[in-house]
Amino acid sequence: MAREAGVQPASPIIKRLLEALLDDLHGVDKDQRNASPEADIYNEGGAIRASFLQTISDALDRRDAAALKREIEDLHQSEMGDLIEALQPDQRSDLVTLLGADFDFTALTEVDDNIRAEIVDAMPNEQIAQAVQELDSDDAVYILEDLDEEDQEAILAQLPFTERVRLRRSLDYPEETAGRRMQTEFVAVPAFWSVGQTIDYMREDGNLPERFSQIFVIDPTFKLLGAVDLDQVLRSKRGVRIEEVMHETRHAIPATMDQEEAAREFEQYDLLSAAVVDENERLVGVLTIDDVVDVIQQEAEEDLLRMGGVGDEELSDSVRDTSRSRVPWLLVNLVTAFLAASVINLFEGTIEQIVALAVLMPIVAGMGGNAASQTMTVTVRALATRDLDIYNAGRIIRREMGVGLINGILFAVLIGCVAGFWFGDINIGGVIAAAMVINMFAAALGGILIPLLLDKVGADPAVSSSVFVTAVTDIVGFFAFLGLATWWFGLA
Amino acid sequence: MAREAGVQPASPIIKRLLEALLDDLHGVDKDQRNASPEADIYNEGGAIRASFLQTISDALDRRDAAALKREIEDLHQSEMGDLIEALQPDQRSDLVTLLGADFDFTALTEVDDNIRAEIVDAMPNEQIAQAVQELDSDDAVYILEDLDEEDQEAILAQLPFTERVRLRRSLDYPEETAGRRMQTEFVAVPAFWSVGQTIDYMREDGNLPERFSQIFVIDPTFKLLGAVDLDQVLRSKRGVRIEEVMHETRHAIPATMDQEEAAREFEQYDLLSAAVVDENERLVGVLTIDDVVDVIQQEAEEDLLRMGGVGDEELSDSVRDTSRSRVPWLLVNLVTAFLAASVINLFEGTIEQIVALAVLMPIVAGMGGNAASQTMTVTVRALATRDLDIYNAGRIIRREMGVGLINGILFAVLIGCVAGFWFGDINIGGVIAAAMVINMFAAALGGILIPLLLDKVGADPAVSSSVFVTAVTDIVGFFAFLGLATWWFGLA
Repeated sequence: MAREAGVQPASPIIKRLLEALLDDLHGVDKDQRNASPEADIYNEGGAIRASFLQTISDALDRRDAAALKREIEDLHQSEMGDLIEALQPDQRSDLVTLLGADFDFTALTEVDDNIRAEIVDAMPNEQIAQAVQELDSDDAVYILEDLDEEDQEAILAQLPFTERVRLRRSLDYPEETAGRRMQTEFVAVPAFWSVGQTIDYMREDGNLPERFSQIFVIDPTFKLLGAVDLDQVLRSKRGVRIEEVMHETRHAIPATMDQEEAAREFEQYDLLSAAVVDENERLVGVLTIDDVVDVIQQEAEEDLLRMGGVGDEELSDSVRDTSRSRVPWLLVNLVTAFLAASVINLFEGTIEQIVALAVLMPIVAGMGGNAASQTMTVTVRALATRDLDIYNAGRIIRREMGVGLINGILFAVLIGCVAGFWFGDINIGGVIAAAMVINMFAAALGGILIPLLLDKVGADPAVSSSVFVTAVTDIVGFFAFLGLATWWFGLA
Repeated sequence: MAREAGVQPASPIIKRLLEALLDDLHGVDKDQRNASPEADIYNEGGAIRASFLQTISDALDRRDAAALKREIEDLHQSEMGDLIEALQPDQRSDLVTLLGADFDFTALTEVDDNIRAEIVDAMPNEQIAQAVQELDSDDAVYILEDLDEEDQEAILAQLPFTERVRLRRSLDYPEETAGRRMQTEFVAVPAFWSVGQTIDYMREDGNLPERFSQIFVIDPTFKLLGAVDLDQVLRSKRGVRIEEVMHETRHAIPATMDQEEAAREFEQYDLLSAAVVDENERLVGVLTIDDVVDVIQQEAEEDLLRMGGVGDEELSDSVRDTSRSRVPWLLVNLVTAFLAASVINLFEGTIEQIVALAVLMPIVAGMGGNAASQTMTVTVRALATRDLDIYNAGRIIRREMGVGLINGILFAVLIGCVAGFWFGDINIGGVIAAAMVINMFAAALGGILIPLLLDKVGADPAVSSSVFVTAVTDIVGFFAFLGLATWWFGLA
């Protein structure tokens, strides 16, 4: 019986829902897009083409290694990664087993953490050790760092001495530092060499890294003296000495520097690669822009997720892990929700007499919350990119107060009129209008001052701003509206 | 009288507030960070060091061009950009005027749009034309594209023919395409040349681009045949022919491709640079990773801002522009707020009799909103990175429903107990618990299905998801809670 390959087994209802939802979302082919002659493995939506997945599934079912190799031999590592993610869990290990030595381990650097762990855990340490030797050191470290220490040691023990020392040095640096992300393969020459000598050396040496864009210049103790870009080498006559064309490396990255900080250096100075040095200024590796692009993506993603109250989630996380990781945030919000409720409770008597207030009060709180989240988003982002600093904070705070006041008045008039007509009472319209102005102004202040304060005390404003800001707009909103009403209608 | 340079003139209250808030936030020096001998112009917080800004301000006040040039001559374009942003508006034009021909226009590609417009608008077209000639074409286009057509034409008319044709070609491509971002300076050689010939050509030609990492291979009609990485050239013997070492360029970028799409190609295939071709497959330019890094940053930022209900705002926007750009979002939210209010209004009679319901109802709606925003954030991000597709959507939808149910039950028990004790009524606890389960489940469904549906119909889920999702959790929350209470207490 042919299995319905590549489509998640799903209960009929969910499946039908899914089909209705997604059929043409990712269905259209994009043959016109890529000019390359070979068939594109992606469809218009950027998902793996169903026909390609079917071919792979069929080959896996038939355990036809030859056909499988033919299909995947031209795939880039990231395409291979996408393919692995699109397969069923049991198909993934079949694929790795069937391909054997032909499986390119770099593809594992392109898949979700959980999927990588699943595949690697199922493999014998010997096979991992074998595969790791063929990887660039940064990719090897990326795969090894997630293993538990025991497996790590077992694998390292099976590697040749130099390889082992290199990888262990990288692994000794703390997580998320430049030392973990660097490649320990690089080209370094002494300053007194000529351009001709350097070119000859590169023509002869079979051990060069796969790709490089800079040559580093070192002294006999491996201290970094400078660097030469390859185009500079190509432009210079053979007789010119390296020290004449090298430039000082102003942006050498300490191995212990946080990867995010290192990424910022790359961005600011448009670097393609940078030397990584140890605490004695000795060259230990090179960090390249492609790794940095991943870091930039990851950091931007983290900010977005944190603002939405989600931690370091992956799409492949289980229900239990996901549920558990989201609870703390909801708990914090629960506390502020009860705080807001107790503000309402203060005015129980007022609400009992004018129920319209209960109907309208969520509008005041909600609009304040939305306005505050606009200000907060801009502030958090500007803090993350370091665009907000002491030189413009004053101006931005004043701008936000201005915007809060203007939009507050605007929406006060609007909401006041609608509410006044709805309940046929101009007093209710007036009260809600006044409360709106107050809450929109509080929203603007909270939206900018809370992230600034959190940043100042060293907390991550992306994580915690929104809970405080919502607390402010809820509490101020309910208090202003119900308090004003109590006073105006003389119900206190 | 010495002016307090570099600090925004602010009213005393704001200023003291600011100082209290920010004094040590950006105050600590980071001398230890950068190993380079020259003084770092940034402090620990990444803002321009106040002492450096003071030096520049003093030089500007004295109109001392020599001192100014000495201070800034070693600055990188991005450092210069940060300096310009830290200066007062009137100081910015002083700086450009004083520096005259020594002002490096590339710094303008590193500042906010409004600040760039301000500076460029104040300059005579002749001076801009002069400066533009010295820029790489991509930087020139970046500055020219924001000018109005009249100025653009006036400046282009003053350029030498080749330059003018090149820039106009870039400007003719639509905004935000690869054609706009590409550099028209590149190195291209015929396939029959030898490596030696190629190296000699590069040694001789004074017109090479400032930096390059690839040599393109073309036929006599400029059709792209392939590319050679510089390290490949350096590794090969002089006699080897270029066609033997070149590789096919699988990832040539059509000039009309959206820049975001192009950035995705770079990310997926770890490209450092890519050929840009016109509709006839002719090489017209090169796109480099440093431009792409900016695009990636920008796109990630746009998603974050849109989810927060903010459009393409810049920090330098005025109060009026900011206020105006945020109104539409607030208006849309207002409509849903009134919808939710009218749901509450249905149960006016119930609330009149049990005021505790009015106190508790924002908790049900608010917790649902938070849970939904967690799910929605994950979904929107996964859609943006194309990690969510037909192969895992079913699993993710089921996961979110599971998480919604589990967390719903968890918080139902918790909130039910607290509410029951608070109002001394187990019935109220039971009703709110039941409403919580319903709303958290609705939140999970809304949080994932709404972004998926919006994506399907071609709307940007980052922009519009949150308004619909909030509408769902508010309406379902109020309806479930008040409806259940009405039925349970027999108040209908």
